[in-house]
Amino acid sequence: MKFLRRLYNYYFSPHRNFVTSLSSILGFVPANLSLYRLAFSHKSFSQTQPTSGARNNERLEYLGDAVLGTIVAEYLFKKYPNRDEGFLTKMRSKIVKRKSLNEIADQMGLDVFLIQNGVDMVSNSMLGNALEALIGAIYIDIGYKGTRKYVVKRILRSYMDIRLLETYDDNYKSQLLEWCQKNSKPISYKVLSKFKFDNRDRFRICVLVEEQVMATAEDFSKKAAEQLASKEALSLLVSNRKPSPHKAER
Amino acid sequence: MKFLRRLYNYYFSPHRNFVTSLSSILGFVPANLSLYRLAFSHKSFSQTQPTSGARNNERLEYLGDAVLGTIVAEYLFKKYPNRDEGFLTKMRSKIVKRKSLNEIADQMGLDVFLIQNGVDMVSNSMLGNALEALIGAIYIDIGYKGTRKYVVKRILRSYMDIRLLETYDDNYKSQLLEWCQKNSKPISYKVLSKFKFDNRDRFRICVLVEEQVMATAEDFSKKAAEQLASKEALSLLVSNRKPSPHKAER
Repeated sequence: MKFLRRLYNYYFSPHRNFVTSLSSILGFVPANLSLYRLAFSHKSFSQTQPTSGARNNERLEYLGDAVLGTIVAEYLFKKYPNRDEGFLTKMRSKIVKRKSLNEIADQMGLDVFLIQNGVDMVSNSMLGNALEALIGAIYIDIGYKGTRKYVVKRILRSYMDIRLLETYDDNYKSQLLEWCQKNSKPISYKVLSKFKFDNRDRFRICVLVEEQVMATAEDFSKKAAEQLASKEALSLLVSNRKPSPHKAER
Repeated sequence: MKFLRRLYNYYFSPHRNFVTSLSSILGFVPANLSLYRLAFSHKSFSQTQPTSGARNNERLEYLGDAVLGTIVAEYLFKKYPNRDEGFLTKMRSKIVKRKSLNEIADQMGLDVFLIQNGVDMVSNSMLGNALEALIGAIYIDIGYKGTRKYVVKRILRSYMDIRLLETYDDNYKSQLLEWCQKNSKPISYKVLSKFKFDNRDRFRICVLVEEQVMATAEDFSKKAAEQLASKEALSLLVSNRKPSPHKAER
């Protein structure tokens, strides 16, 4: 039955354009079109459309997020038979992190589908969410095995450099903590000020190594500011340079 | 081939006792015995056994955790076609939370398998971890569909009261915040003191509703203390036992 539906969708459906462009992304002809349409329905649009019954892609995103997590978990489990679960967990979170998904969805051109579904301004996070929702839709449409094949071939192998991710570490705070521990240097972070910017809280923080200010940074969250400051401090410490005085005194 | 292996395991294997007791838990005869043995190998044991090459159940636990998450996500997605993803996410975390898994594993009698594999003292968390590792082993042994059938039938339907979980909410802080929002009452938490107890930090905090102390509580984490105080405050507020709020004129 699904085969006939696919045949119909591809050759006779009134939505042939949608089917053709979707098929080129999927690598197969979708059977359940309404599911894929839902995957590209953002809540900002569905809320203004009472007829749509507030149906949006959030449920599919919830499902796709879980399915993607398992597929990636299994892929790494088999790819690295001798690595411990700490390594696997870290690798997995590097792969499925929001920023990567947003970028992949962008490269896949999912923005076009969102715009076709009535979204005016496509934000980065909308893209990543749509990718997760798409994976949820694929899962319901063709099951676990087919989805796994899709994710491995069309996402992991096409857009990810897994080997590069092995050594890539963008958690500068934990790198800095590790460095300080190894070199027996006490480290601490301090909030210098909290103020409003663009009506949002903004934090200015500094990182002190051996009670000396190594770097200061600011951002809309303490965590992000700490990362920025840690990155700068790390590059100074590793290259054995001193913080520039005007920075240190702030 | 797997069928023959199962047949052999059940009738002729030298580990027939293990196969029989495992089969009664699984509902099917396992093909890959070493996988299940690994699922019950705790790191505390493998580390003292150099011959085991530090092989323990942590990798399988990592895999099983992901697989379980997806199966539960899908189960809820289908069981509640009209609920939003916020509800589904909350329900999922109630089902897969550590405490539930520990209890289920205890009721399933997984402690026996851990003890047979050399664990002296079985802790609660070892049990939950072994259950996740068991799910990882089942997944590799019989694939996604079979694992889904196992989890739904032998875990969700046997040990969980999903309907009861719908209304069960042990996050008293979020309940209290919701109540205060609904009743337009400002709420805040305050740390009264932090001290050492048993060489650990202990916090004494209070919750203020309309700037009046409603309850105080202490625990080893701020979060836990806030939960305790919130629970007490909630019961006072809901039963209307709180001192009548004398509102400052504005």
